[in-house]
Order: sequence, then C-alpha cells, then structure tokens
Amino acid sequence: MKNISILGSTGSIGRQTLDIVREHADKLKVTALAASSNIELLEEQLREFKPDLVCVYNEEKARQLKLRIKDLSVRIEAGMDGLIACAASCAADTVVTAVVGMIGIRPTIEAIKAGKNIALANKETLVTAGHIIMPLVKEKRVSILPVDSEHSAIFQSLNGEDRKRVAKIILTASGGPFRGKKTKDLYNVKPEDALAHPNWAMGHKITIDSATMVNKGLEVMEAAWLFDINIDKIQVLVHPQSIIHSMVEYVDGSIIAQMGMPDMRLPIQYALFYPQREKLEAGKKLDFISLKQLTFEEPDMETFKGLKLGIEAGKLGGSMPTVYNAANEWAVAAFLQGKISFLDIADLIEACMREHKLIENPSLDEILNTEQETYDFINRLLSP
Amino acid sequence: MKNISILGSTGSIGRQTLDIVREHADKLKVTALAASSNIELLEEQLREFKPDLVCVYNEEKARQLKLRIKDLSVRIEAGMDGLIACAASCAADTVVTAVVGMIGIRPTIEAIKAGKNIALANKETLVTAGHIIMPLVKEKRVSILPVDSEHSAIFQSLNGEDRKRVAKIILTASGGPFRGKKTKDLYNVKPEDALAHPNWAMGHKITIDSATMVNKGLEVMEAAWLFDINIDKIQVLVHPQSIIHSMVEYVDGSIIAQMGMPDMRLPIQYALFYPQREKLEAGKKLDFISLKQLTFEEPDMETFKGLKLGIEAGKLGGSMPTVYNAANEWAVAAFLQGKISFLDIADLIEACMREHKLIENPSLDEILNTEQETYDFINRLLSP
Repeated sequence: MKNISILGSTGSIGRQTLDIVREHADKLKVTALAASSNIELLEEQLREFKPDLVCVYNEEKARQLKLRIKDLSVRIEAGMDGLIACAASCAADTVVTAVVGMIGIRPTIEAIKAGKNIALANKETLVTAGHIIMPLVKEKRVSILPVDSEHSAIFQSLNGEDRKRVAKIILTASGGPFRGKKTKDLYNVKPEDALAHPNWAMGHKITIDSATMVNKGLEVMEAAWLFDINIDKIQVLVHPQSIIHSMVEYVDGSIIAQMGMPDMRLPIQYALFYPQREKLEAGKKLDFISLKQLTFEEPDMETFKGLKLGIEAGKLGGSMPTVYNAANEWAVAAFLQGKISFLDIADLIEACMREHKLIENPSLDEILNTEQETYDFINRLLSP
Repeated sequence: MKNISILGSTGSIGRQTLDIVREHADKLKVTALAASSNIELLEEQLREFKPDLVCVYNEEKARQLKLRIKDLSVRIEAGMDGLIACAASCAADTVVTAVVGMIGIRPTIEAIKAGKNIALANKETLVTAGHIIMPLVKEKRVSILPVDSEHSAIFQSLNGEDRKRVAKIILTASGGPFRGKKTKDLYNVKPEDALAHPNWAMGHKITIDSATMVNKGLEVMEAAWLFDINIDKIQVLVHPQSIIHSMVEYVDGSIIAQMGMPDMRLPIQYALFYPQREKLEAGKKLDFISLKQLTFEEPDMETFKGLKLGIEAGKLGGSMPTVYNAANEWAVAAFLQGKISFLDIADLIEACMREHKLIENPSLDEILNTEQETYDFINRLLSP
C-alpha cells in the first residue's frame, strides 16, 4: 500500500489523481488532502477517501469546512502551515504537488526534507527554485517524479538508459489554439478563445499558458532541472496532435519517444506506481490507423514570444525565471479578468525581465521577494 | 576490448559491421570472418582487420584465397565446418550472424553452445528454429541481440521495462516499393522494379522480401521468439517513412518508440555495444522540421498476401515457418533469375504451406528435411 498526500486536490490534476486512487484502492491510500477554497468538492473527497489530515488554504473556508464535517475524524489545518503539514507531517510516502503557482515551493521543500517522494505537477517549484530543490532531492535521496505529460515522457524515454549518453531532449508542444496565427491575428483574442485548447482539458491558468506558449517556456526550464541538461540541448518541437509527448535523442542518433492519447491520468499513474506500470482503467489506446499522421513544425517564436522569453529566462537563470513566472501569473489573471489583452501578457513579461536586476543564486526569501517586486513593478507600470 | 566474429562479412550487414569496427578500433576487434565466395572483398577485409580465422563457404574459393594470402598468418577454413569454427572455435565474445538463409542455424546453435553472445542479423535462425534456439540461449545464459532495425527498436523500447507489462508490439513496415498498388498492378513487375527500395539500401534477397512483405512476415515470427510474445499481440503497421523503427505498447496505454534515420549502422552498433550507446560517426540525425510528417496505414494483406501467410505460418508454428521460409527463398532466387513472376512468389509459398504436413516440434534434422522437401515439392510442381 502506497500512502499519498495531494496538494491541490480539487484542481484538474488533483481530481484525476483521485480517479487513479479510486481505481487502485488496493494499492493506494490518501493520507492528506489540501485545497485552496473549494470546500464543497473537498468535503466530498474527504467523505470518500477519508484522509487523516486536510488543509484549506483559505482560513475562512477552513472554518466553514470544520462546521460541515463535524462527524468525520480528520484534522483540519489552514494556510501555509496547513499546506506544509499536508506535505511533511503526514504518513504519505509520495506527495503530489498539484497546486498552481509559487505557493508550491515551500511545501515541496518541506516534503523533501521530511523524506517524501515528490510527484511533481507544480512547475513553478523547479522553474523558480530548481537550484535549491535539486541539491536537496539528491541530499535526501528522494525521488522527484514528473507528472507533466511532457516530462513524464522524457522520464519514460530515459528508462534503463545512461543519462550521460543523452544528446538532446525534444520537448513537444501542441502549439495551442492559436498555432499558425500571426501577431496581427491575436489583437482581439478573448479569454474564451484562449481557453479552447485543441487536445487537453486542463485548468484555466495552464490553458492560457498553452495559448501564449509560456507553458512551454516553463517546461523547458523544468526539464533542464529535472534532467540536469543544458537548455541549449532542449529543442521545442510543435506537434499539433499531442501524441508524441516528448523524446530523447542519444549520442548514437537513436531517438526514444513516449506516446499515448492525451490523458493526464497516464503520467499521474506512472508517477504514482513508478517503476511499475499498471493497467489504466478506461484509458483509450492509440490507434495509428485512424490517427493516419503525426506532424511537426518549428515553433513560431516571433508570434509566441512568451516561449522565446522563457528560454532566455532559463539561460539567464538565477532570479530571472521567477520574474518570468510571476509576471506571467499576474498577466494571466489580469487577462482572464478582462483587464489586459492577450498580447499584453508576453509584453508584460518582457518589460519585467528587462527591468529586473538579476540575482545569481537567490535564496528562498530572495525568490519570494523577486516575485513581490515583479508584482509591484507591474502595478506601478499600469497605474494611471 | 570486445572480440567479434562476423558470419557473412562481405554482405551488406557484414560490411557495415566492419565500418563500425573501423570507427571504434579502440573498443572492437575482429577475431574471425566468414563469407560465401567473394574472396576479393574478403581478402581486403583480412588485410585490414587481421582476424585469426577465416572461412570461405565455397571450398574452391577457399583454395583460391589460400593462394592469394600466403603472406598473412590466418587460419583458413571452408564449408559448414569452417562456418561453425568461425562461430564457436574463435576468441569472439559476440558472433554477428549476418549470413542469408537457413545456413545460419547450425553455426548459431554452436556459437550459443560455446557461450558466445549473438548479434542476430539472420532472421531464418529464429523463424525456423526459435523453439530450439531460445531455450538454449536461456540455458547457456548468453544474450541474443537483434540487429534488424525493427527488432532493435523493440529491444530499445523495452529498456528498463518489465516485459510482463507489455500489451503489444507494433512492428512498422515501410510497405516497400509497391505500397498502394493492387494485385492487378503487379503482374509485370521486374526484378529491377522490386529492387528499388524507397528507404533502405540492403541486399537483394531482403529487398525482394520487402517488396512482397514476406520480410515482415519473417519479422513477425522473429519478434515473437525474441520477445516471447504471442503473434496475436504483434501489430504490423505500415509507416512509409521508416523513421519509427517499431514500438511497444504497455498495459497503461503508454507507447515507447525508437526512431532514427534509416541507417543499419545504428542497430548494428547498438547490438555490439549494448547496453552502452556510442557516438555513431557520420550518422545523420533526425530532423523533424524537415521531415514534417510521419504517416501510418493498415497493411494491405490481400495484395501482399506474403505477409498474411507469414502470420499464418507463425501461428501454426512447428515446421510451417520453415516451409514458408524455404518456399520464399526458392521463389525469390527464381524471380531474380527471371524464371517466375513477382506474384508467383506468394502463390508458391501458399501452395507449399497447403501441401505440408505440420511437424509440431521439429528437430534440427526435421527442419532441414522440411526445407529440402519444400524445394523438392516446388521442383515437382514446376516441372513440365
């Protein structure tokens, strides 16, 4: 029996993780759940999966939940302390970090310090604090298992191979809903246009990130940390069908690729059961005959300059990825609220990056300060 | 330093194996070479690679070679005894079996008995005698490393994985030069048409086998033995670009694929250095941008009934794969000599299979008898 804790249980990845647990109740047990504020769904999850510990990040919502589940014997915590408790002070072997944003960093660090394996679905952790996380992972001898479909594909393509023989990583990208469009076509994009992803059903933040290709910029940085590879050796390849989830090229020219239907349960399950593979219930199988073709294109980094900026931020390193990420978080929220235009997202990221004075090897406090300074800069920039 | 012996050194695979040895002279040494009759090329190879032992299968040619290389200190053998000496009585760690046809069976068996690892490029060995070879491989604890690009791809896609979790093998096929054609288009095919393979430069026999798709039938049987999988779980998929060399689907729906440029040196080198990968000198790298697309089609088993018959022979097992293979060897030779038509090849195979009385678990003698009986039957069938 493997015990798991899920940070972000009411989000898309969290819910699909619980689908996997439901299918494999003989092998997986939930010991802790944490969510931001959706206490209705969280209550359902508590009643079904009966963890010992729950955290509601929003303290008022935590109080409300307490009143609703008086009949259950579950410890209820709130705020960052609660999130850290779910990450570190629970019986979990593996912590699924599926919260969105830099809020995931501290709980992830505490989980690693407590010797937990990490099923990583929170990109921001490695993007902004990879230089702190990865040495800690090594020191504590825990595993960090990617949940992102692309990183899971790379991880699977490295199975049984000598990582020193990797020549490059080919990170595939669907291109998102605006693939093929030019900047002039994107002036009047509305949130609902950007939320219509062709292949994947995901949360709002990541869907917008996919439309701007900022998501791929974050993934390049994440891959560099996860697989200890120079960003120059990561090629982003547009592959609209999202069937090849990513590939690894070795020194002999051989390429190993992992493919599958676009279904997040596959990488989630792989991370939970690694190194074993289990049957994926109700998972659709790839049918190459009906698929007919897989196509490939070069990414258009002029139109989707969010990707180009991500690669640039990753190469600069230090505190720059935090600026990139924070500016994007702010901009996506503002875009979804109708406050800025779609093209403003990348322009804002660029403005923040140009403004920022790089800190080479930032501490956790400096990372969090950089995040706040980025928000402050945008607020000054946009104040009338 | 790894010592290797090459059976079939003057053929396409043999010559490319020597290219690899030349590039890695610090890691590979040739201890024995065997060829059928091309003593001009063999002499060049002897002078360059200086093995201790050489076999010329043709005894008259062996005698001629002896006169030409009096200045070299190399033991010269001939015939089947010579071939077996090169396989078993030499200093090789690994024997590359690159001879064409069932002539490869006995040397392969003797090599395994002598504890040599096998780099297998001779399909017929496993197709006709898999039930003898595979238990022997297990008993002698040697490795059998596939050199065929498809089987190497499957082998690479199984790296680090639990073979019990394999759901199916997807064996790709280029479809050959007549892909898309119907039976009516193939009445007047000439040897030179069939020898024009779109992707691979190979020997004549295998190129014709690719045009009839008999090659894929043989590969299905070979894969079943090599990877201990039921033929029902092997899907043949036409993929005209020959970029994805084959794939493995696991129980979770995940598919691992191996890709590369169509270059036989890649699987040869992989077999020689396994489990390590070495740089492939002058090997072209895959470029997905210029490639643009990979396409897939269902194999047309009505037009290319050689494939259907191969799957049938594999399912029947016993001595039937020997009949399939022997009839095909005879028919391809006759076609290349202009004695029969292209479509006659599969018809002859079918006639032989219908005539044959299956032997369930044939001994080596029964396999060789079945081969001879198949030739005799064809000769009776075609005699005026």
